Parts: sequence; C-alpha cells; structure tokens
Amino acid sequence: MNSPASFGSDNQAPAHPSVLEALARANSGHTPSYGADPWTERAQELFRQHFGPHTRAFPLFNGTGANVLGLSSILRPHEAVLCARDAHVDVDEGGAPERFGGFKLVALPTQHGKIAPGSIEASLGYVGDPHRVQPRAVTISNATELGTVYGPGEIESLAETAHAHGLLLHMDGARICNAAVSLGLSFAEITTRVGVDVLSFGGTKNGLMGAEAVVFLREGLGEEFLFLRKQGMQLASKQRFLSAQLVALLEGELWRENAAHANSMAQRLAAAVARAPGLEIAEPVQANAVFARLPKATIGELQQRWPFLVWDEQANLVRWMCAWNTRAEDVDAFAADVHAVAGKFAR
Amino acid sequence: MNSPASFGSDNQAPAHPSVLEALARANSGHTPSYGADPWTERAQELFRQHFGPHTRAFPLFNGTGANVLGLSSILRPHEAVLCARDAHVDVDEGGAPERFGGFKLVALPTQHGKIAPGSIEASLGYVGDPHRVQPRAVTISNATELGTVYGPGEIESLAETAHAHGLLLHMDGARICNAAVSLGLSFAEITTRVGVDVLSFGGTKNGLMGAEAVVFLREGLGEEFLFLRKQGMQLASKQRFLSAQLVALLEGELWRENAAHANSMAQRLAAAVARAPGLEIAEPVQANAVFARLPKATIGELQQRWPFLVWDEQANLVRWMCAWNTRAEDVDAFAADVHAVAGKFAR
Amino acid sequence: MNSPASFGSDNQAPAHPSVLEALARANSGHTPSYGADPWTERAQELFRQHFGPHTRAFPLFNGTGANVLGLSSILRPHEAVLCARDAHVDVDEGGAPERFGGFKLVALPTQHGKIAPGSIEASLGYVGDPHRVQPRAVTISNATELGTVYGPGEIESLAETAHAHGLLLHMDGARICNAAVSLGLSFAEITTRVGVDVLSFGGTKNGLMGAEAVVFLREGLGEEFLFLRKQGMQLASKQRFLSAQLVALLEGELWRENAAHANSMAQRLAAAVARAPGLEIAEPVQANAVFARLPKATIGELQQRWPFLVWDEQANLVRWMCAWNTRAEDVDAFAADVHAVAGKFAR
Amino acid sequence: MNSPASFGSDNQAPAHPSVLEALARANSGHTPSYGADPWTERAQELFRQHFGPHTRAFPLFNGTGANVLGLSSILRPHEAVLCARDAHVDVDEGGAPERFGGFKLVALPTQHGKIAPGSIEASLGYVGDPHRVQPRAVTISNATELGTVYGPGEIESLAETAHAHGLLLHMDGARICNAAVSLGLSFAEITTRVGVDVLSFGGTKNGLMGAEAVVFLREGLGEEFLFLRKQGMQLASKQRFLSAQLVALLEGELWRENAAHANSMAQRLAAAVARAPGLEIAEPVQANAVFARLPKATIGELQQRWPFLVWDEQANLVRWMCAWNTRAEDVDAFAADVHAVAGKFAR
Repeated sequence: MNSPASFGSDNQAPAHPSVLEALARANSGHTPSYGADPWTERAQELFRQHFGPHTRAFPLFNGTGANVLGLSSILRPHEAVLCARDAHVDVDEGGAPERFGGFKLVALPTQHGKIAPGSIEASLGYVGDPHRVQPRAVTISNATELGTVYGPGEIESLAETAHAHGLLLHMDGARICNAAVSLGLSFAEITTRVGVDVLSFGGTKNGLMGAEAVVFLREGLGEEFLFLRKQGMQLASKQRFLSAQLVALLEGELWRENAAHANSMAQRLAAAVARAPGLEIAEPVQANAVFARLPKATIGELQQRWPFLVWDEQANLVRWMCAWNTRAEDVDAFAADVHAVAGKFAR
Repeated sequence: MNSPASFGSDNQAPAHPSVLEALARANSGHTPSYGADPWTERAQELFRQHFGPHTRAFPLFNGTGANVLGLSSILRPHEAVLCARDAHVDVDEGGAPERFGGFKLVALPTQHGKIAPGSIEASLGYVGDPHRVQPRAVTISNATELGTVYGPGEIESLAETAHAHGLLLHMDGARICNAAVSLGLSFAEITTRVGVDVLSFGGTKNGLMGAEAVVFLREGLGEEFLFLRKQGMQLASKQRFLSAQLVALLEGELWRENAAHANSMAQRLAAAVARAPGLEIAEPVQANAVFARLPKATIGELQQRWPFLVWDEQANLVRWMCAWNTRAEDVDAFAADVHAVAGKFAR
Repeated sequence: MNSPASFGSDNQAPAHPSVLEALARANSGHTPSYGADPWTERAQELFRQHFGPHTRAFPLFNGTGANVLGLSSILRPHEAVLCARDAHVDVDEGGAPERFGGFKLVALPTQHGKIAPGSIEASLGYVGDPHRVQPRAVTISNATELGTVYGPGEIESLAETAHAHGLLLHMDGARICNAAVSLGLSFAEITTRVGVDVLSFGGTKNGLMGAEAVVFLREGLGEEFLFLRKQGMQLASKQRFLSAQLVALLEGELWRENAAHANSMAQRLAAAVARAPGLEIAEPVQANAVFARLPKATIGELQQRWPFLVWDEQANLVRWMCAWNTRAEDVDAFAADVHAVAGKFAR
Repeated sequence: MNSPASFGSDNQAPAHPSVLEALARANSGHTPSYGADPWTERAQELFRQHFGPHTRAFPLFNGTGANVLGLSSILRPHEAVLCARDAHVDVDEGGAPERFGGFKLVALPTQHGKIAPGSIEASLGYVGDPHRVQPRAVTISNATELGTVYGPGEIESLAETAHAHGLLLHMDGARICNAAVSLGLSFAEITTRVGVDVLSFGGTKNGLMGAEAVVFLREGLGEEFLFLRKQGMQLASKQRFLSAQLVALLEGELWRENAAHANSMAQRLAAAVARAPGLEIAEPVQANAVFARLPKATIGELQQRWPFLVWDEQANLVRWMCAWNTRAEDVDAFAADVHAVAGKFAR
C-alpha cells in the first residue's frame, strides 16, 4: 500500500519501529487525559534534561500549531514577527499566522536561508509608530528551509541583537535534531545557551508518528500556554500518546540516530550526484536535504520515477529530502538515475 | 504506569488493540503526506458507505478542531451558531470558537441536554438587524453532554426547522457511535437521512488513539475545507496515521462493538446504583454516561477511591462515564462502593 | 429633511449647537494628524481633571470600538469578560467582541439590568481549567441598558469583588453623563474613586456629533492602547475633530446640562404616563429612558405616530428614550397620546 | 491653536468651509440613526450617479476601516490579497488586515508605486495548494502612495488579468479625487468602467472632516456589508453626519475643485524646486504629492521650519504633500527656502 523510495519529504516516512513499541507500551489502562498523565510528566523531565532546568514543554499535534501558538504566546496583539524571506511560517502555513495568530510576519533578506543581525536592526525603524506593526520576536528555522544550519555563534549573535532591542528569539525546530547532529552539539548548546527563548520542537519529521512541542526555555515564559494550547485546538485528550512518542525520541539516542542517518544519506546523495552533467548543488548540504539545480528536462524525466519536490519552478531548483528510513541503496539507485538522465540531456 | 479503573472520562481509556495493529500495518515505507495517501482514500470510501454518496470527510486531530473549523466553514463572518445551553462547544472549548472561529454562540434552553425546534424559532427575532449576530447554524451533540440521545425524529424536526429558516444543522458527534448504537440505527439514519449537514465525527472517545473528522453530508458543502483545515492548524503531515485509525473503526464492527460495550456498562452501573440510599439518577441513561445526584459527603468519599467528575458542584451532580474498556467487575465494585458509602451517610 | 419628535433613541438627536461651534473653531489651518494636535492635548487635560491624574484618554469613533478595544486591551487571548445578561456589548454589537476582540462574554443574571457581586463569584468556579475561558474583566453599563443607575456603593462593591479575584472592572459609559447627573456626583465619584479601571466614555448620545473615548483610570493601564486603537481601525486622521467635540462637552457644563435635560424629560414622561390605563412602568426611571409595559394593540397604534423601540416583543415591553433636545411639549403631546390610545383599548 | 503651513499630509488640513455648512444644515431635529436617514439615502444616489447604477456605498469612519472591511468582505477565510510593495494597507495599517481582517497580504514588485499584470500572474503558482494562501483580490491605490496615477488602460489591464484568474480588483481610493482630476476623467471612467470591483472612497484627505465609504461597483457584491460594517466597529450611530459630508463633496464640484487645487499646488512646488542644487524629483508628480531626494543635511534644516515626512531615511527621500487648502504663497515660500538651504549645502 506504500510508495517506493521517496525523496519528497521526511514526513513521507513512517514512524520508527521503536516509536510504535512505545505507543503499544503506553496503551494500557486508564490514565488521566489532557496531559495529567505520567508520560507527559516524563517528557517534561526529558525536555528539562536536554534544554535546561527552566524548560517548560507543551506537547501538541503539528508544526503549524507549534509555530503559530508558540509565537502568539509571546506577542501582544499589535506586535509582529520578523522572519526569513521564504520561511515556512510565512509562505507555507496557509495564512494561519495571520488568521489564527492575528500577527503580521515581516520578511527579512537571507543568505542560504539564514538571516543576519544587521537585517533585524534595519527593520526596527518604525518602533513606536502606531501605523506600523511593532516587531516583538524574530523567528529562525534550524535546520533552515534550504537544508543549511545556523551555528551556535550565529544564533547567539542573532539573540543578542534581538534581546538588545527587546525582541525574543523563536526557533522553528521542525528539524532541530538534524541541526544538532550536523553540528555535533547538544540541544541546549544551540538553543538555551545561545539565547533562544521559545522553540517549536519537531519530532514528526525525525521518526515520530506525529508529535511536536512548544518549548519555553526561559523563566517567566509559557505560564499561560496551557490555556492557549487548548484554545488553539492543539490539546490532545489522550495526550499520553503524544508524550510517549516524545519520550521515545528523547530518552535514549533515537533522536540522534534518526537524524544522523538522514543527514548522512543527504551527504551520500550530494556526493554521488555532484558531478552529474549540468547539475549544480545549490546550497551547502548541512542537514538532510539536497538542493540542486538541473535542466528542466532532466527534472521532468526524474519525477516520473522518483517523488521529489520542485522548489522553484523558474530557477529549476529541486529539493531531495532524506529521512530516518532512507536506504543507502535507494540513494545510490537514485543517484545513478540522476547521472543517466542528466547525461542523456547533456549529450 | 496507568491509573486504576476510572469513571472519569472515555478519553482516559487507551486505544483498542486492533487500532494499534492497524497503525503498525500502516507504518511501513514512504507514503505521500498531507492526505494523499491510500489510508485516507480508504477512509473516504468508508465514510461514503456509512453516510452516503455525497459525503466528504476530512480527518483531523481533535474535537475542538472539528467543532470550531467545521462550524467556521459554514459561516460568513457576521454569522452565529445556536447551541444547547451547556453545550461542550460553548463552555468547554476554552474560547476557541470566539477567538479562532470568530463566531458567537447563542445558548438555547434545554431539556435533558436537548434543544427543541421552538427554541430555534424563538431566537430568530433579529434576523436582518445588523446590531445582532445572524444565526446561520444550529449545533446539537449526539449523544448529548448529559448522556441522552436525540432520536431520528427529533433530529429531523430540528433540521426541518433549521432549514426552513436558512440555517444549517451541525452535529457534534464526539460520541456519535454511542448514539447510533443506543438507537440501533446506522450513522446515515441519524445524520444524512434526517437532515444533518455537517458532522464532527468522533473516534477518540470510542477506542481510537486520537482521530476525528469533519464530515460534510450534503453536496456543495466542504469544498474549501482543505484550505481551512490547514489554516486551522489541523492538517497532519503524516495523515496516514489518522486515517488508518478511522479505517480501523469503520471498516468492520469496531465502532459498534466499542460503543455497545460502553453503553451497556453504563446501563449496568445505573441499574446497580439506582437504589443506593440518597442517590438519584439525574438523566435518562441512553449512552455511556450515568448522571447522578448524591449527597456531598458521599461524593467526597467516593472520589478518594474512584476518579470521576463532579458535573455541578452546587447541584451535587456527578458524571460517571464508561468506555470501551470498562470492565464489568469494575462497574460492580464501584457500584458496591457507592452503596456502601451512600449507606454510611444515610444512616 | 428630519423626523418629528422621536423617543426612539438618544442617537437620533442632532449635536448640540455649541458642538458645531467648537468644530467650526477647530476648523482652521493645518494641525498635526493622528492625535498630535492641541485639541487632543486639551481633551487629555480635561479627562484628567474629571477622572484623576492617572487618567489616559483615547478619543475614538464609536461605542462599539470603545467597548471592544477597551476590553481587548486588558485581556490576554484566553481571557473572558463577565457581563450583565442583555448587556449591549453581548447582544448589540453584531458579534464584534467575538470576531474582532476574540473574547467570549459570559452573561450573568441581573436585577433591573444590574449585576451583583455574588454572581461574579459564582462564575469563577473554573479558574485554572484550560477547558474554560478565564474571566479577567467585569463590564457594567452605567446608566444600564434598562435606564437604571448603579450607585457608587454598588460599583465599589463590584470593584472590590472583581479586584479580590484578579479581575478588572470596565464600565460601558455610553450614558455615563446621565448616570452622574442622576446621582448628583462627579465622574470620578462613580468611576476612579470606586474602583473602575477602564471606561468607555460616551459623548455621542449626550449631544456630540460622534466622539467617544477609551479612558484608562489606573496607572499602568493603556500603555499600548495607541497601537491597538490604530490596529482596531479607530484612529482618526483628523483627530482634532473628535477631540474638539469632547472638549466642548467637558470644558464647561455642557455634559451636565444635556444629561440633566434628558433625564428630566424621562421623569416628566414617566410621571405623565404612569396612570395610563393598562400601562406599567417596568423599571425605575433613573436616567433618560422610560421602560413601560402596555397592551400590544396600544403599542401598535402609538408606533404609527411616534418612533420608539419595542424592547421585548413577547413581554410587550417598550423603551422611550429622551435626549438633550427632547422638548417638554413633545413629551406632553406624546403622553397625552399614550393616555388616549391606552384609554381606547382599555374600554 | 493651529500649525503653520505644512507639507506633512493632506490630513493635516482642516475641512472645507462648505463641509461645515453642510454639517450645520444636517444638524437639526431627530433623524433615524445607523443609516436610515435621508442624508445617507442622498449619498447613495450620488454614488450611483458617479459610479453607475449597481453601486452600493457604505459610509464609514476612516480609511483603515474601509480597506480592511472592504477587502474582508470579498474574501473567504483562507484567501489572500495581492498588493503593491509598500502599499499603505500592507505597511501602514498597524497590522489591522492581519488581526482584524485575518488575511495575508502578498506584496508584488512595483515601478513608480504601480504593479503590472505580469506580477499578478507570477504570484498564482500555488493556487490549489492548501499550504499556501489563495489570492482572491488585488488591491491598488489610486493615486498611489508615491503620488503617481494609474491611467484607465493600466487599470483595465490589471482588472482583466485579475478577473481572468478569478480575482477581484479593489482600489484604495484614499486619494481617488486627486487621481480622477489628474486624468481629467470621471470616477466611473477609472473604476466601474475599467473593471474595479470594490473601492475605498476617500473623502477625508480631500477636504472632509472625516468620512470615507466602501463602494461596491458590481452587482452581487456587498450584500452583507451592512453586517460586516457594524461588526467591524465602523457603523456610526449618527450616520447623517458622515453622509452629509459625502453629499457635500459629491453633489457639486467640491470633490473636483479641492483635488484640482491640491494637484496644482504639487505641480507648482515641483516646478519651483526642480532645479534646486542637489535635489532630484524622485517620482512623476501626477497627484498632490512631490517626492524628492535631497542631501540629508538639507532635509534636516528644512524640517526645522516646515513639517513634512521623510519617506525613506536611507534613500534621503522626502514627501511633500499638498492639500485643498495649500496656499500658493506658502508653496513659493517653501520652495524659496528649499533653494536657499540646498544652495547653502551645495556650496
């Protein structure tokens, strides 16, 4: 009933078997609903271990919910969010931030999907002018939409700039495991310790069935998120089944193993296709995605056999995404096909 | 790690083992995300079989999302929803309808949790007056918040009244399986065929891990719900895992067996406690809940041993909820305890 | 081009001539827009004189804006407002609080349009439960929708109860001038000094062309209202013309004279019709409205000659509203007609 | 009490004396509130005369309200609006479209403040993808934010492109009188006849005290705007005073005379400063604004004596706005000062 090997998205992958096992273990007897269960308590402990003692984590359903509600929770009604041009939250949430969060996103220029402190400062010229929205948060994605990764120094520098102007730093961590593994650092080293205030922690793309969390990293934040999560339609009645997944990911090495595998498959793929005729690797491959430019005809023929995304139609830019379950042999077969098709059109 | 037998809520129960098995079967290989997977297609087929050929079903995460988005989708901005006084959507969704749906709920009087056609008509006096919200939908819960069940005649009569005034009829079916089983009728017989336009179909309380659906029952409805579900933060990336649960429930007899068991346990409990001294069964027991009035001291002592909800503190009204996994011996033990404690305070 | 004498509403009256004169005086030369003009500064001074030194007043267009934005400004997203059953903000704002404010209104029982401290306390049973909205403000109207007036003791007692539970007290003062005059008290004596935190100050119904203000009475409130007023579509570009009206009302005795006249006309009317056969004065006449019950046939015939509102069709309850420009001879003529028609149907 | 001559904004000007006279004439006796008055009826007639027989006009308070509510009224919740980069509605409404309209604005590239049909088409690549907002309207400002004017051919071509893709064309006509006069055309010739569907008609900047209107130009549009205007906090209780202003503007030649004067003063100013050393006229002067680039030091010194806006700090771009009451001698004095200061710094 399932598709062949796909480089379409890491959310086309199944859940890791050990996540299923964790769900099966959690599936016994009555337990209090809405988060008053022991799995949620255990998940809290694990988030505190990974992110620091002031951490408060709130499991919820998906990344849209995590981003929209996490950001909403730190804004007053007239406040806005600075984001990278082409940030997922800006272009890929179907208008949820505006309609359900009620906030405006202000897009900043990027290089390799990353924003720089200078562009935060350049966007603060209208602070105090009631005709303009007032920036209150900066959001960055790590790993970024383009498969690049902010290092701890870059994050710290963004955080310092943000904080110096009274802004909070939010991280869309839909692929935070891939980022941490790419850098060889702990979660805290790329979040709490370098000034991130609020995090959307992503589990689904890294081998869960479906579970994310809004994670507040600084004392005084998130005190009312309990209410906002419910109001925001993201409170699971049988929350044990979200929390058990997060526990499975964070208790041992699963988060690291899954991400390491996905990242290494992207490296393997990039290396294997790099010299295909007419193909150009478009972005540094630092997480689990390969962005490449190649002739339109090549793209068309490859898509008939392999599911993947054309990122920018006009730029002939494609995205090949690896997941925890991507097999080396599928990477190799795909790369071989890339060479074959590219060669054909290069002749 | 789990609690003892609980009469607290049907969402304190685990998932039925066959749901876990269905998830395990779905958990293999890549599949398109966001609903373009074969499990979602199969769920669609099953919804059409159960509800009729014009049915469109949209799996989503939870009941709050189903109610708020389902209702939103049939309202224009200035329109409002008529509901039963004490309806879950009015008092128990944390303000989600107002903030995220943007709509006002107008509460109508009830008898045994049910509204009557006359009270719909009585609330239409200001149609056309821009100072007043304009009712556009009536929402009823079946089974109701009080464990009672609307029969097909009652629903049809509400639908006729609603339609005669240009209103749509929405059903909050968080416990629709319990209602259908209680009446011995099919889903269609208590929805599509008696005039229900939109349904929140509930699976979670009836043995799923967590999956609900907004179900449009009439041609021309729901055509844009795809967009609203995404914008409303209720689109699952790995949607196969929601759909596979719904398939497990609807493909065979699981929906019926689970609900029948829960309902019968409620009957058993009601019968067993009915003559406890000082206790009064407060509402007809027609689904899987028993509402009882009993002395405050009795309530207090029982709560020390058994998890359940005090529905109305001042009225000494409690709710005892049975689930698909409630065991007869637990019902009997609980009933014996009720007798013992009630007897003690009656002395 | 204008209607005959009307008892329909105080907003069917024109502006007082001295308001037109004030507008004409303000209508000369350039002045900074959006509130940085001297009339707005002068209005601020006057509000501080009338309400106390911590007062911040924000002129805006209308009462809907004042109520929705004033209340919004003191709520966090998950918070709700307690109001009187049948409060204007609940039933007569076309759903604006829900859609544009995003907040739920919880209606409390009333006597003569007034709520009591006990009903505030009775509505706080679910504080801390994320399934329920969390009350954060109480709103009362003074004068009330039913033409009655809260005395300072009643307000203080509501404020104490509200504050004791962490709630703020908001007053819808669409007719605050009528209330103050009725009680023979200053504005501060019925607001700031008895615990009101935020006020919708109404000028339009008391002889202005169209100007209201959100008035924050306590230090620390309203600091960001500048942004919310703009975002809420209530910032006038040529704000001098709102402020000049408020100055005209508050600088001398105009606020008092207009309200005193309207109130006395209501007294005159009530006295004149009190003994009409079959007529019953339904509420104490304390401001500028007379509520009366009289036979349906009488209502119907009177409406053919005099514009007024049927408040409750089923209860045969009508509202007769007097304004700053209501003439004694019109009151007398109307009262005579009431007697004549009532007499006819009593025969 | 008023400022000296200002080139800061056309909303720093007073109302035209004949508008005051019209208000005084309207200020007599009772009249139905909320728009059921004869002035509103007369305004309707005039809008139909100017814009065509299917016109429905809804007076309201200000431009923010007109833009946000007018656009909201033609969108379904998941739909978005395409606008010019730097459009007032995008950058200057304090986040009102997002929070109160709930819609996302997608900015298109511009030349001289104007968008081209090609950029509409280029933005439609994700129609049907629920992750993306779905464009439903294009909004243009005429005159534009940069003082340029779309000609009828340009508008028609945008309208044709929009309609061909199922989008509606909205015009922000805060300065539509200036645009019409600049082109020597009637209102209909630059709106209804060239495909504009909905218009924010601006009166305030052209000599009114404060009155705008949302104007629907095509049959079938605006049928429920009555409700949305009330809900959107833009329904005036004493609406006669908004309508009387619009009547004053539209009944005779006032709209044309005021705009013609403002436009001619901008021409006079542009001609007078064009050769000042170091100064560059930055945009074609087609309405009542002059955009100029000049050295920072010159700007600084001029601002000490004359109120005007620095449009872009980094580009040394200023805006000089003329109004219906701008005097030729003030233009000349200002231009002389520009020459003097510019000359000083050029030495």
